[in-house]
Amino acid sequence: MPEDTVLVAFSGGLDTSWCVAHVRETLRRPVATVTIDTGGFDAAELARIEARAKDLGSARHVTVDGRAAVFDRFVRFLVAGNCLRGGVYPLCVSAERIVQAEETARVAREIGATAVLHGSTGAGNDQVRFDVAFHVLLPGVEVLTPVRELQLSRQQEFDFLAARGFPAKLEAKTYSVNRGLWGTTIGGGDLHRPSRPVPSDCWPDTADPDAAPAGGVTVAIGFERGVPVSLDGRAADGVSLCRRLAEIANPHGVGRGVHTGDTILGIKGRLAFEAPAALVIVTAHRELEKLALTKLQNRWKDQLGAFYADLVHEGLWFDPVRKDVEAFLASSQRVVSGTVTLRLVRGRIEVVSVDTPASLLGRMGAVYGEGSRAWTGEEARAYSKIYGVPSVLAARRDADLDALARGESPDGGKRSR
Amino acid sequence: MPEDTVLVAFSGGLDTSWCVAHVRETLRRPVATVTIDTGGFDAAELARIEARAKDLGSARHVTVDGRAAVFDRFVRFLVAGNCLRGGVYPLCVSAERIVQAEETARVAREIGATAVLHGSTGAGNDQVRFDVAFHVLLPGVEVLTPVRELQLSRQQEFDFLAARGFPAKLEAKTYSVNRGLWGTTIGGGDLHRPSRPVPSDCWPDTADPDAAPAGGVTVAIGFERGVPVSLDGRAADGVSLCRRLAEIANPHGVGRGVHTGDTILGIKGRLAFEAPAALVIVTAHRELEKLALTKLQNRWKDQLGAFYADLVHEGLWFDPVRKDVEAFLASSQRVVSGTVTLRLVRGRIEVVSVDTPASLLGRMGAVYGEGSRAWTGEEARAYSKIYGVPSVLAARRDADLDALARGESPDGGKRSR
Amino acid sequence: MPEDTVLVAFSGGLDTSWCVAHVRETLRRPVATVTIDTGGFDAAELARIEARAKDLGSARHVTVDGRAAVFDRFVRFLVAGNCLRGGVYPLCVSAERIVQAEETARVAREIGATAVLHGSTGAGNDQVRFDVAFHVLLPGVEVLTPVRELQLSRQQEFDFLAARGFPAKLEAKTYSVNRGLWGTTIGGGDLHRPSRPVPSDCWPDTADPDAAPAGGVTVAIGFERGVPVSLDGRAADGVSLCRRLAEIANPHGVGRGVHTGDTILGIKGRLAFEAPAALVIVTAHRELEKLALTKLQNRWKDQLGAFYADLVHEGLWFDPVRKDVEAFLASSQRVVSGTVTLRLVRGRIEVVSVDTPASLLGRMGAVYGEGSRAWTGEEARAYSKIYGVPSVLAARRDADLDALARGESPDGGKRSR
Amino acid sequence: MPEDTVLVAFSGGLDTSWCVAHVRETLRRPVATVTIDTGGFDAAELARIEARAKDLGSARHVTVDGRAAVFDRFVRFLVAGNCLRGGVYPLCVSAERIVQAEETARVAREIGATAVLHGSTGAGNDQVRFDVAFHVLLPGVEVLTPVRELQLSRQQEFDFLAARGFPAKLEAKTYSVNRGLWGTTIGGGDLHRPSRPVPSDCWPDTADPDAAPAGGVTVAIGFERGVPVSLDGRAADGVSLCRRLAEIANPHGVGRGVHTGDTILGIKGRLAFEAPAALVIVTAHRELEKLALTKLQNRWKDQLGAFYADLVHEGLWFDPVRKDVEAFLASSQRVVSGTVTLRLVRGRIEVVSVDTPASLLGRMGAVYGEGSRAWTGEEARAYSKIYGVPSVLAARRDADLDALARGESPDGGKRSR
Repeated sequence: MPEDTVLVAFSGGLDTSWCVAHVRETLRRPVATVTIDTGGFDAAELARIEARAKDLGSARHVTVDGRAAVFDRFVRFLVAGNCLRGGVYPLCVSAERIVQAEETARVAREIGATAVLHGSTGAGNDQVRFDVAFHVLLPGVEVLTPVRELQLSRQQEFDFLAARGFPAKLEAKTYSVNRGLWGTTIGGGDLHRPSRPVPSDCWPDTADPDAAPAGGVTVAIGFERGVPVSLDGRAADGVSLCRRLAEIANPHGVGRGVHTGDTILGIKGRLAFEAPAALVIVTAHRELEKLALTKLQNRWKDQLGAFYADLVHEGLWFDPVRKDVEAFLASSQRVVSGTVTLRLVRGRIEVVSVDTPASLLGRMGAVYGEGSRAWTGEEARAYSKIYGVPSVLAARRDADLDALARGESPDGGKRSR
Repeated sequence: MPEDTVLVAFSGGLDTSWCVAHVRETLRRPVATVTIDTGGFDAAELARIEARAKDLGSARHVTVDGRAAVFDRFVRFLVAGNCLRGGVYPLCVSAERIVQAEETARVAREIGATAVLHGSTGAGNDQVRFDVAFHVLLPGVEVLTPVRELQLSRQQEFDFLAARGFPAKLEAKTYSVNRGLWGTTIGGGDLHRPSRPVPSDCWPDTADPDAAPAGGVTVAIGFERGVPVSLDGRAADGVSLCRRLAEIANPHGVGRGVHTGDTILGIKGRLAFEAPAALVIVTAHRELEKLALTKLQNRWKDQLGAFYADLVHEGLWFDPVRKDVEAFLASSQRVVSGTVTLRLVRGRIEVVSVDTPASLLGRMGAVYGEGSRAWTGEEARAYSKIYGVPSVLAARRDADLDALARGESPDGGKRSR
Repeated sequence: MPEDTVLVAFSGGLDTSWCVAHVRETLRRPVATVTIDTGGFDAAELARIEARAKDLGSARHVTVDGRAAVFDRFVRFLVAGNCLRGGVYPLCVSAERIVQAEETARVAREIGATAVLHGSTGAGNDQVRFDVAFHVLLPGVEVLTPVRELQLSRQQEFDFLAARGFPAKLEAKTYSVNRGLWGTTIGGGDLHRPSRPVPSDCWPDTADPDAAPAGGVTVAIGFERGVPVSLDGRAADGVSLCRRLAEIANPHGVGRGVHTGDTILGIKGRLAFEAPAALVIVTAHRELEKLALTKLQNRWKDQLGAFYADLVHEGLWFDPVRKDVEAFLASSQRVVSGTVTLRLVRGRIEVVSVDTPASLLGRMGAVYGEGSRAWTGEEARAYSKIYGVPSVLAARRDADLDALARGESPDGGKRSR
Repeated sequence: MPEDTVLVAFSGGLDTSWCVAHVRETLRRPVATVTIDTGGFDAAELARIEARAKDLGSARHVTVDGRAAVFDRFVRFLVAGNCLRGGVYPLCVSAERIVQAEETARVAREIGATAVLHGSTGAGNDQVRFDVAFHVLLPGVEVLTPVRELQLSRQQEFDFLAARGFPAKLEAKTYSVNRGLWGTTIGGGDLHRPSRPVPSDCWPDTADPDAAPAGGVTVAIGFERGVPVSLDGRAADGVSLCRRLAEIANPHGVGRGVHTGDTILGIKGRLAFEAPAALVIVTAHRELEKLALTKLQNRWKDQLGAFYADLVHEGLWFDPVRKDVEAFLASSQRVVSGTVTLRLVRGRIEVVSVDTPASLLGRMGAVYGEGSRAWTGEEARAYSKIYGVPSVLAARRDADLDALARGESPDGGKRSR
C-alpha cells in the first residue's frame, strides 16, 4: 500500500462510511478498510460491507473473523470470573472492541499503514478502548478520530456523502444496536431516561417473555476447567455453543436486561441488552463453582472477577496486571468440570441440577442441617466456643471501658496488661 | 424465678419440646421459656406455643415480638449492602437468630436465669450464632445445648416425650422450613443433592410461576436514605411493608431461589428459599444506587456489603468491626431516596423505572453514546491519550526487555534510568 | 473587587510571581492574591510574601492559616488509616493542596473573583488536585493555569519579570522542597534517577542519622479515639504537637525516607521526604491499634486506609465515597486511646511500650504460647480439627479426581452426590 | 517398622523428649523420630538430637534438610508478596511448620507409621498448622498431641524423664526462641506485656544497634523474576543467600522488630523477632517492584500478598485457593529483575539505588514534576477536567438536593431525568 495509507476500522454504517470518504476527499490520502466480525454479521452482510467499502474508495478491504478470538481470549475469562456488571450486565461490547482493535492493528502492520482510523465519538467508552489499543500496539502510527474531533451531526455526514453520490441510507434509527458473540447491546431513545419504562420495541432478537411458550426448554451445559465445551451432550467449540444457545433461548424470552453503569469518562449511562448465551452460561458456571470451589476461592474470585470486568470494560486490558488476574482465574478453574442442567422458560433461567465429580458437598458424611459423621456434638461445641473468642474478648473489654468511664474498677483490667 | 432456672429458647417444635422436658425431668431444674417471633408465627400459633410450653412444665413463658428489631437492626443494612449471598440468597435466617439470641439474653437477665438453652444441632450454623451471642451477652451464665451433645434421633425425642404423656406430633417432615420476616428457607430431602432437580413440592407459600397469572402486577417502592418506606405510594413501617410485599408477590411466583453455600463449620449446604420481599427490595435498591452513587461508592459497597453479609451469616456480628461497616453503609445511603417501579410476573422481577432527584445520569448535558456538552472531542482525545499512558509505558518497556533478551539495544532503555 | 478580578493562589515563588505579573500585564485584569499557610511558612516569610504580592500588583492580599484544617480534616484520618504509601510515604503534600484549594475558593467567593489561578505545571499531581477542587467548589468561575498551558522555562519567567523591574531571585535550585505540617517533600536532581544514590545534600531539616547523638530521645504520645492529643504527658493541639515532635525528632535523624510512586497522570516519580511527626505518630498509632482492634478491624482498616490515601493523593477527595470511608475510620477509632512510648535514635523509631485500657491482649487468662485458661487442650484439639475441614474435604476430592483420571473408582465419589 | 509405630516430630527439647518417653513408657508403642532442619540447627546440634532420640528409645531417627523447601516453596512467595504482617513481621515460623509437617508426613508414609505425634500446646498456632497438614496428608493416620491434652507443666515433664533416668536439662528459660531460615522468633518473659519495654536481653544473634559500627555495610541483592539470586554480584542459592545476608547484617543490629498479632484461636500475642535477611530482601524487592510494576499491579499485590501471608500464618495453606494466589504472584514477577543496593547501618536499612531494565520511570520523556514530552499542557488540562467529572456531577447534584430541601427549584434537576 502507498506510504500514507490510512486503515479505517469499517463497520459499513454511516459514521465509518463518512470517514472513508473524508479521508479520500478531504485528507486526500489512500484508504484501506478492515471489518472484523465479532459475531454481529452474517456472510451476506460482510459481502455488502466489503462492496460498500470499495464503492467509497477503499483501495483494499480485509474481512477478519474475530469470533474465536473473542471466545478464547475474553469469554473464557469472563465466564471464569462470573463477570456481570452491577449483578446483571455481561460486558457484551468491550471484549469485541479490543479484538477489533487488535486485528485492525495486525492488518495495519501487514499492509504498512501509517495511520489507523476509528469512528468513535467523544462521548462513550469505545474511543478509549481503541485509542489505548492502538497506542500500545502501533507505536509511531497515527490514530485518526475525525468523528470525535469534528463532531458532525448524522445529517451533516449524510449530506457530505450524498453530495458525492453515495446514497448512505440515513435511517432515523431510534436505537443503536450492537450485536456480538457475547450479546447484543441496545442504547438510545427512552433508554437514556431511567424514569421512563424500558420501551417494549427495543428488543431485536428475543421473544417477549410474556408471550413465550409455557413449557420452556431444558439445556445441559458441559464445562471443562471452567470453559463451556458441550451443549446437551454434544461437544461444541465456543463460537458454535454461544450461537446455538442463543438460538435456543431467544424464543423463550431469556437473556433480556437493563443496566445503568459508569463510563470511562465519568458519566452514567443506561442500556438494554439481550445476552441469553452469556446469562445462561454464567448462571450455570457460578452454580458449578459453588460446589467445586472452597469459600476462600469463591470470595477472592468474586473480587478478581469484578476487577477483570473493570479491566475489560474500562480500556485497561493492556495493563500488565491483566495477565496476573488471568493466571489467578485460570488456576482456579482446574477442577471446575461437570454438567449443569437449566430450564429456560418465559424469561427465567432456573438451575435444575449440577453434576460434577469435583463436588465438595456431602463428603465425609457431613451433611448440613443433619447429623454429621465428621465431628461430634462435643467437638462442635468446642469449635463454636473458641470461634467466638474475639467477640467475647472485645465485649469484656468494652464492659471494662464502660466501668472505667463510670469511675469503677474494671473487672478484667488488671489482667489486660 | 428460682436460682437455678434454665431459660429455654422455645419454638414449639419437637427438639425444643424435648429440651423443656429434659431439663425438667432429667436435669431436674426449673424451666422458663421464651419464644421470639421474627416473622414466622401468627397470633394463634404463638398462643399454641405458649400453651404447649406451660404443658411441658415451663414455669413462665414470655412471647417477644422481634420483627421490628429484625428490620431496624438488620434488614436496613442488608438492603444498604444489597446483600445476596452467591448472587442470589438474601440471608433469611441468620439475622433472625441473632435477634432471637439477643431477646433471649434480655429475658434471661430479667428473670435471673442462671442458664440458657438453645436447641441447635452440631451440624449447622445456628449453634454458633446462639453460642457466640450468649457468651458475649451473658457472662457467667451457663449455655446448655443438649440436642447437640446428646445427638438423639427425632424418634428418641418423641419416645421420651410420649413416655411422659406429651403427644408431640412427630410428623415425617420431608423438609425443614424456617419462616421469617426476610424470607423462608427450606432444607432437607433431595435439596441436599445438587445432582437431583429441586423438588416441585418444597415451596410452601409461592405460587408456581408457570401457573401464575399472565399480566403480573406492578409495585412501586419508595426509599428514604436507603430504607424502604412506602409501597405503591402509601407509607409503611418496615414490618408491614415486607409482609404486604410478600402477599402481593407470592401469587406471581416471585421470590423462589436455590443456593449452595458454605457453613461456618466448613461444609457445603444447599437450600431452597422463598424471599419475595427481600429479592424485590434489593433489586429495586440496587438500581436506585446505580443512579445515585458514584462508581467508587458502588465498588466499595459491593465489597463491604458482601463482608456485612459474612458477618451476619457467620456468627461474627458481635465483632466490633460490624459497627464500622454499618457506619460506612449508613453514610453511603444519605442520598439514596426515590421510587422504583417494578413488574412482578410469572417469577420474574423487572425494573420498570427509577425516579430520584439524586440521579447522577444526564447532568451537565453529558449523555452516554451521544454528543456531550460537558467536554469537547479534543478534550476527550487528550483524556484518552493520557489515560492509556501506563499501558503504553509497560508495552514499550516490554519491547525493550524483549530486545535485550535478543541481544539488541533497547529503544527506550537509555531514557529509563 | 472589580468584576473581572483574578484570584491567584500565591506562594511567593518564581512561578506564581510570574503569574501575577502575567495577569496584570498580559491579560490586563485586576489581581488579588491569597497565601495559605499549611505549615511551611513562618511569620516573617508570610510578611515577605505579602509584600511581594503587593509589589507585583496584587490589589488585595489575603493570608490564611490553614494548618488546623490540615490536621483536623486530613491528618486525623491519615493517622486513623495508618496511611503510608508504598509502606513508607505519609502523603505530605496532597492534603495541603486540598486545604489550599478550599481556602482559595472561599476567598474567591468572598471577594467575588471571576477567575482563580494556580501555578501548577502539566507534569504533576497538583494540577489535578487544584482543578478538581475549583471545578467542584466554584461553579461558573474560570480556572486559569498559564504555567501549564504556556510551558515557559524558569529563565523565560525570570526575564519577563526582570524586564518589568521585578528582581525575582532565580536561584539555580537543585531540589524543589515543599514544607508542610505533615512533612517535607523533596524532588528534583538525582532523585529522579533510582539507579543513583539518594544525594546526601538533599535533606533540609533532619540531622544526618549517622552523626546523631548516641543516646537518642524518648517520647510518649497520647491518643484519644485515634487522635494524638498529648506529647510527653502534656496536652497539645494537633498543630503544636506535630511541630514540637518534628523539633524533637529532627536532631536524631528520624523521619527521612525515599519513595517511588505513581502519579495521577500515569507516570512514576521518585521523591525524598522528611516527615518525622508523621512517621512517629503513625508507627505509634498502628501499635496501639494492634492491641485495641480485632483482626477483622485491622484487616479492613488496612484496605480502607490505603483507599483513603488514594483518594487524598489522587485528587478524588471530593468523590462522595470519601465521607463513607471517613465514617468507617471514625467508627473504628472509638476505643483507640492510650499512650505509646517510643525511642528515637540515630534515624530509628523504636516502639518501647504501649499502655491502653482497651487492650485485647492477656484477657480471660489466654496468653499466647503459654497455657490458656480460656479453653482446654481437648477443646483446642476439636477447634483445630473442624478448622481444617475445608482443606481436608478438598484434598479428599482431589484424590478422588486423580483416581478417576487413572480410571479407578474414587473413594468418596459415591458420597459426594 | 512395627505396625503401631508412632512417628514423633522431634526437636530435642523438653516437650518432645517427654513425648518420646511417654509413647514408649505409657502408651507402650514403638517410636520413630524425625527432625526437620528448617534453618535452626547446625550439624553438631543435629547429631546431638539424633543421639538423644536414640537414648530416649527411638527405634529409628531420620534427619531431613528442609531448608531448600522453605525457600523454594514459601520464601519466594513471601518475597513476591512483600509479606510483612502488621507492616513489620516476616512470618518467620509458620512456613517452617508446614515444611516440617510435610516432611514428617512423607517419612510417616515411608516407614508405615500408624500415628504421628507433634508436641504443640493448646495455646498457640502451631497445633493448627500441624493438625491440618496431617489431616490433609495422612488420611487414616492417627494424630497424637499429648502435650496439648495432658497439659503437663515443664516440671512434670522433667520429673517424668528424670524418674526414668533421662537427665533432660530443664533450664529456666526466660524466652522461647525459634530459629529458622527466614528469621528467629522470640517469645515469653516481659514480651507478653506491651506496657513493659522490650527487654534488652532477649536478642540472641543481632548486635545492639546502638553499639554497631558507625560506617555500616553496603549490600547489593540481585533478583531474577522476583527471586533473590545473587549477593554482592555473586550468584547464590536461596539458602546460602539468606544465611550469608544474616551474617552480614547481624553485626549492624539490623533485623530486629516487635509485633503484636492475632493468633488462629483468636487471642493476641506479642513477640520479638530477628529477621535481617527477610527484612532486607523484602525492602529491596518492594522498591524494585515500585519501578517495574504498574499501579494496578502493586495495588492488587498488596492485597493478595497480605492474603497469602494469612494463608501461611493461619494454617490455611492447604486450601486450594493458595495455588490460585501463587499463580497471581508468580505471573506478577515476570519482569521483576534487577539489582538493589542497600546500606545497613546501626539497625537501619536504607535503599541506596535500584538498577533494572524493567523500570517504568522516566520513559517517553515523562518526568514527574518537570516538563513532560509525553503530553502537552493543554492535554493535561483536558485530562484533569474530565478526571474530575464524577466529583463535579456529585457536587452539582448535592447542591440541587439542598435547593430542593429548601423548597427551591434545583438548577440541574430538569436535566437529571
